[in-house]
Amino acid sequence: MAVGLHGLPVLFPVPGIRLGTTAAGIRKKDRRDLVVIECAPGTQAAVTFTQNRFCAAPITVAREHLAMSAPRALLINTGFANAGTGTPGIDDARACCEALASQLSCKATAILPFSTGVIGERLPRERIVASLPSCLASLHESGWAEAAHGIMTTDTVPKCSSRQVKIGLHTITVTGIAKGAGMIRPDMATMLSFVATDASMTLPVLQACVIAAVNQSFNRITVDGDTSTNDACVLLASGTAENPVIDQVGGKAYIALLGTITEVFTKLAQAIVRDAEGATKFITIEVKGGRSESDCLAVAYTIAHSPLVKTAFFASDPNWGRILAAVGRAPIAQLDTAKVTIHLNDLCVVRHGAPDTGYTETKGSSVMRLPEIRIGVDLGAGTASACVWTSDLSHDYVRINAEYRS
Amino acid sequence: MAVGLHGLPVLFPVPGIRLGTTAAGIRKKDRRDLVVIECAPGTQAAVTFTQNRFCAAPITVAREHLAMSAPRALLINTGFANAGTGTPGIDDARACCEALASQLSCKATAILPFSTGVIGERLPRERIVASLPSCLASLHESGWAEAAHGIMTTDTVPKCSSRQVKIGLHTITVTGIAKGAGMIRPDMATMLSFVATDASMTLPVLQACVIAAVNQSFNRITVDGDTSTNDACVLLASGTAENPVIDQVGGKAYIALLGTITEVFTKLAQAIVRDAEGATKFITIEVKGGRSESDCLAVAYTIAHSPLVKTAFFASDPNWGRILAAVGRAPIAQLDTAKVTIHLNDLCVVRHGAPDTGYTETKGSSVMRLPEIRIGVDLGAGTASACVWTSDLSHDYVRINAEYRS
Repeated sequence: MAVGLHGLPVLFPVPGIRLGTTAAGIRKKDRRDLVVIECAPGTQAAVTFTQNRFCAAPITVAREHLAMSAPRALLINTGFANAGTGTPGIDDARACCEALASQLSCKATAILPFSTGVIGERLPRERIVASLPSCLASLHESGWAEAAHGIMTTDTVPKCSSRQVKIGLHTITVTGIAKGAGMIRPDMATMLSFVATDASMTLPVLQACVIAAVNQSFNRITVDGDTSTNDACVLLASGTAENPVIDQVGGKAYIALLGTITEVFTKLAQAIVRDAEGATKFITIEVKGGRSESDCLAVAYTIAHSPLVKTAFFASDPNWGRILAAVGRAPIAQLDTAKVTIHLNDLCVVRHGAPDTGYTETKGSSVMRLPEIRIGVDLGAGTASACVWTSDLSHDYVRINAEYRS
Repeated sequence: MAVGLHGLPVLFPVPGIRLGTTAAGIRKKDRRDLVVIECAPGTQAAVTFTQNRFCAAPITVAREHLAMSAPRALLINTGFANAGTGTPGIDDARACCEALASQLSCKATAILPFSTGVIGERLPRERIVASLPSCLASLHESGWAEAAHGIMTTDTVPKCSSRQVKIGLHTITVTGIAKGAGMIRPDMATMLSFVATDASMTLPVLQACVIAAVNQSFNRITVDGDTSTNDACVLLASGTAENPVIDQVGGKAYIALLGTITEVFTKLAQAIVRDAEGATKFITIEVKGGRSESDCLAVAYTIAHSPLVKTAFFASDPNWGRILAAVGRAPIAQLDTAKVTIHLNDLCVVRHGAPDTGYTETKGSSVMRLPEIRIGVDLGAGTASACVWTSDLSHDYVRINAEYRS
């Protein structure tokens, strides 16, 4: 089903980062569902977490641990999200961290836990703890692809991205994985994404990188508008590349590194949309001519969240009236409809608020049949712009989410 | 399909109001698609219109006419919405008004036009004009049920409501019809609704009534979050009941009348949700314990618009984690998750932020199988409350909206 995702890209190992994956039988048998990402001593981490107030127990624990220690390992399980589980859920997350910490001979606060899956049910902590040895036995710098499989839930394909960039004399690697297909409307975070680099930089620079990159990637996608309780995006920096430490936000090395990180983040974010539950279309919504970026985003998200727009794309029906209706109800302070122009790819459908004279249903249909489509909206009011990626709404979205727990 | 709607209620005629319906072949053959509602001289009208900036041509014309004259007739067509049609669409709406005005020997500004249907295509004004005589020939005070049929689009059943109330010595009638099943998130308006009363009152009182009643009824429903370009809710008062003129907002007669009008509006609004595209469930979302009504509404609408909550209801799956996740991402300033309690009907599922100890999956399933379900959310933060009605998201919603124009 995934739109335009064919096979895995080349994944460059990140020196200092090893990944182990195993099948712990957490919710289903014989399915990879437990991942450990081990970090060399000296690795730093910057994380963006979900803004959902009902955040999951592991989010609470990871946030706490991150404030206390540099990480030695991330512990990730699928099957159950350990969200909406109250105090017992916090205890479960802590117990799993302690078990891994004792195997790695480190403090429990050096473990960052992450979970994804069904909300509201307890984590089977015994099965997780019992599977740690086999998970650790598989630790390897080439473990990225396996780990990408190990964090999937309703995803149909693993999601990975990898880039190298020369900074001065040093080749820097950025490699990452992500999961997510539904309950996707990241808010300063994504579903789960783990990206590592060997670049050496200060912690404030690392934190600036993750925020800037997330804002242009994971915070620009939506499948169904539902922000998950478990969203987290982790950026690890092992520092093993031995490049001169990047300690300034905005310098040349920073810009090169951030560009590469943003590229990896964007590939992963787009992969989530391409593999969105039931998706048959990959839709790019570019809004320009706005008075502010936030106006452009408000218009883009209103289009992206409209079930009527999404079903029209599923049907390959050039029912552009639904796009126009979505623009018209977007929560922005001012809109001069007589200045609005709308394109589907390069085909103008609405010019200055009225149907374009060159538009025909036949031309509209031929664009709508494509698997990847760009909706271009020009608000004609200013110079700001923004871009959001989303998917269509299909029978399979309903089927997948109606059957999710059965 | 419509949940809990069985047959038409008794519809009391409103003296002074006559309705005519015909099949003008506007978009499909042999389908009732044109309605005229004729008002006795002296009838006043108050209307709430869509807040969608891309409002349809008839909305623009009706707003203009309403400011200039008391109405002699409403002219309503289905098939095409006459929205997104630019200046030619305005001309079409005016031409239709002029044709009806000449038949009724009144000014064109005394005609209020309304359209519903596909966005972005021109109105076949010749077919409409040609069918006016047969439509006028059918004018009758008992024409409400026929007219309710005549304004349907994807509705599966006509929607009508009627009440009588004694005010002093006078029996006052309030009768109305509505249409709508998709693109429903009214915003100071609804899809199309036409309600009439014979009560005598001043225009400011009539306007106060329509705003107050809409706020508690049509502005409390959502199917898919999509605000239509053509929403309008009309309240007509013929004044033929000869009761002492109600000229004070807040007096005893006003309160009795407003109560009855609100009852009729609420029945019509709920009927739209009961007949929502593909609906198999009628869901009432009651949020209480909020710091403000707007907080409660924000939480209620976040739940109501969540595709994941809606598909869980379609599946009769007590996946309450999705409700909890929706509450957690609602755009309100403060939320103490440890105080949140969630019920499905009388079954407590989450108490003070954690799963209720008495909750079992079996109990949850037995509630979720019902056709009408109440989600109760207590935010534990204040005394405000609000109620919203919505539907589930089913395969048929996708099918209906994917096939709408085919």
